[in-house]
Amino acid sequence: MEDALLIIHGGGPTAVLNASLYGAVTEARERGRGLRILAARNGSGGALREDFLSLSDVPEERLRLLLRTPGSAVGTSRDPLEEREYDRLSEILKKNGVRCVLMNGGNGTMDACRRLAGACRAKGFEISVVGIPKTTDNDIALTDHSPGYGSAARFIARSAMELCADVRSLPIHVVILEASGRNAGWITAAAALARGEGCEGPDLIYLPERPFREERFLEDVSDLLREKKSAVAVVSEGLRNERGEPVAEPLFQSGRATYFGDVGSALANLVIRRLGYKARGEKPGLLGRCSISLQSPVDRREAEEAGRFACRAALEGVSGKMAAFRRISSDPYAAELFLADLEELGGLRESAVPDRFINEAGNGVTEEFVKWCRPLTGEAFSEFLAFN
Amino acid sequence: MEDALLIIHGGGPTAVLNASLYGAVTEARERGRGLRILAARNGSGGALREDFLSLSDVPEERLRLLLRTPGSAVGTSRDPLEEREYDRLSEILKKNGVRCVLMNGGNGTMDACRRLAGACRAKGFEISVVGIPKTTDNDIALTDHSPGYGSAARFIARSAMELCADVRSLPIHVVILEASGRNAGWITAAAALARGEGCEGPDLIYLPERPFREERFLEDVSDLLREKKSAVAVVSEGLRNERGEPVAEPLFQSGRATYFGDVGSALANLVIRRLGYKARGEKPGLLGRCSISLQSPVDRREAEEAGRFACRAALEGVSGKMAAFRRISSDPYAAELFLADLEELGGLRESAVPDRFINEAGNGVTEEFVKWCRPLTGEAFSEFLAFN
Repeated sequence: MEDALLIIHGGGPTAVLNASLYGAVTEARERGRGLRILAARNGSGGALREDFLSLSDVPEERLRLLLRTPGSAVGTSRDPLEEREYDRLSEILKKNGVRCVLMNGGNGTMDACRRLAGACRAKGFEISVVGIPKTTDNDIALTDHSPGYGSAARFIARSAMELCADVRSLPIHVVILEASGRNAGWITAAAALARGEGCEGPDLIYLPERPFREERFLEDVSDLLREKKSAVAVVSEGLRNERGEPVAEPLFQSGRATYFGDVGSALANLVIRRLGYKARGEKPGLLGRCSISLQSPVDRREAEEAGRFACRAALEGVSGKMAAFRRISSDPYAAELFLADLEELGGLRESAVPDRFINEAGNGVTEEFVKWCRPLTGEAFSEFLAFN
Repeated sequence: MEDALLIIHGGGPTAVLNASLYGAVTEARERGRGLRILAARNGSGGALREDFLSLSDVPEERLRLLLRTPGSAVGTSRDPLEEREYDRLSEILKKNGVRCVLMNGGNGTMDACRRLAGACRAKGFEISVVGIPKTTDNDIALTDHSPGYGSAARFIARSAMELCADVRSLPIHVVILEASGRNAGWITAAAALARGEGCEGPDLIYLPERPFREERFLEDVSDLLREKKSAVAVVSEGLRNERGEPVAEPLFQSGRATYFGDVGSALANLVIRRLGYKARGEKPGLLGRCSISLQSPVDRREAEEAGRFACRAALEGVSGKMAAFRRISSDPYAAELFLADLEELGGLRESAVPDRFINEAGNGVTEEFVKWCRPLTGEAFSEFLAFN
């Protein structure tokens, strides 16, 4: 049996998860010298069931569709492995001749990657396990940013821009756009990129990194509507008040889970009730993480490169590391890949938006953030023409 | 004072409202022989205040930005004119040398267009008033379809497609996508176009043309989840039950208006409570009517042509008519413009999705609808690659 390389996806998909898959598979074909290329169907659970898809013989012109395929073409899973399953998984890998494992996912998957590398090492198996970072939320530490974020940022920036143009022309008094990212405000912050030729951008941006003060928010909106006819606010789905409670009200309990209403709608309703202005909340939700139409070309390229880089490292026998980006320059944009140590990552918290990127009032972002974020979203935004 | 042509926008913007503006302005420049080209700032209210924007001298390369500008570049308004204001408006037009008026909007605006034409005729003013249809909801009668709809249809179809790819790969049990169109299900129905190479499309589609039966919906979802891991349903924001009551619960009263929750969230919560499956609702809302990224090229071209056609008719002295589309063929797609009589339109109800486009179970659309709708959305959708 030929040696094999196995790719495992973990966690929610992004607009470029399959681009990393394309990069990894292509690199393995070019440099893997006859290595069988496998993917675990539906993530680590599939690997435990030895449910492998063979990607060795997919024609190149088919494979290239991955660059523009949303979701995960090989499935993914949200369930973390249990402690005892790492040993079992390493035995399964050994049995199936797997010499390289690439795990593509977020913080949870990177932790699994670290554990699996450790389990293989402990057993003396020569199996290289390397991580490919992937998250729309951009909350993985040690890397400047993660593939998936640039496209999610582009989605929210374009959406905010189009929404502002729409709202300004009608006008609707207040529109609240809810953005993804429960604990980190990276996606929400990217709405600031909407500002440009012909677009003022959103008026208010609230990140989960700051406690949300309802009264302050109502004042912000009132102040704005004294000067202009409409206000657009972008809010994180994970906003919490000063007591740490979710801003959206709990709807009901089901088993252990509490279900909360949508933050955007909740705040729109607050504006109607307390200020008497017409307001509505919009929530693209999952649409923001899977939009191929708004896929960032930079993000796609970097996702492919991260897949290739991780594959090369694994082929060279590296293990327990993650492909990570180091930024060299924002203008012109340049970044390089390096290998980050997963042991080090394991000791760090989820990466949140730092203070220097948030304005003093806590209702917007800084120019420094915009400069940092813009290149990740790819091409410049269109110019608009507005007379009124 | 030179004669003038005045453009007035009414109602909510679409992704191609400004493309019609571009068409009208360009045609007026080419054939108007020195006609001044004006737009009323923020719709008919602006016209009553004699608040006119001059578009005569905007450089062509700037003007072309209109083809890709969301919202309304000259503003628009939702407030209908009062009966007595038509006389006043006709006097204002006369005073300002306006010889041609183009009113771009939906059913309300077309009615205003008819009344204004009547008021001008009654006074013996030689003022031509012609309508340009515009609606994302596609509820204007007498025309095969209206500019704005093709792009809204493309948005929901692409969104549903990407959502299905995302949900299938994870999987999330149930996702409900809420689509715009309170009284007519045209946009909701277009989600069916998501079906294609690599995508099954949404499993269930509920239009406001049929009473929504909660128990039947829960059975539909249960049946699906016995066979597959996830279900995607697309629902109209305007769903009502058999008693004609909105499916979303009333949240609160503010003045004369009752505010309702979002239908998508309401149904997701119903699924969680009653069936115990994880479910979430997404609501792109206004994002679906202003997306330039998902603007349909066919829709953009037709919007421009409708603007040009209406302008030509007005220049030739036609009044009280609307530019309308007659479909010649769906495959290959061909349609022609004609002048529909606004008197006739006035006697008709909003155009709803006809029975032949809705499946028998009332939870999907027919192949006939898909064939009718697809050409309006422009280019074919991407192919996806999915192994799992």
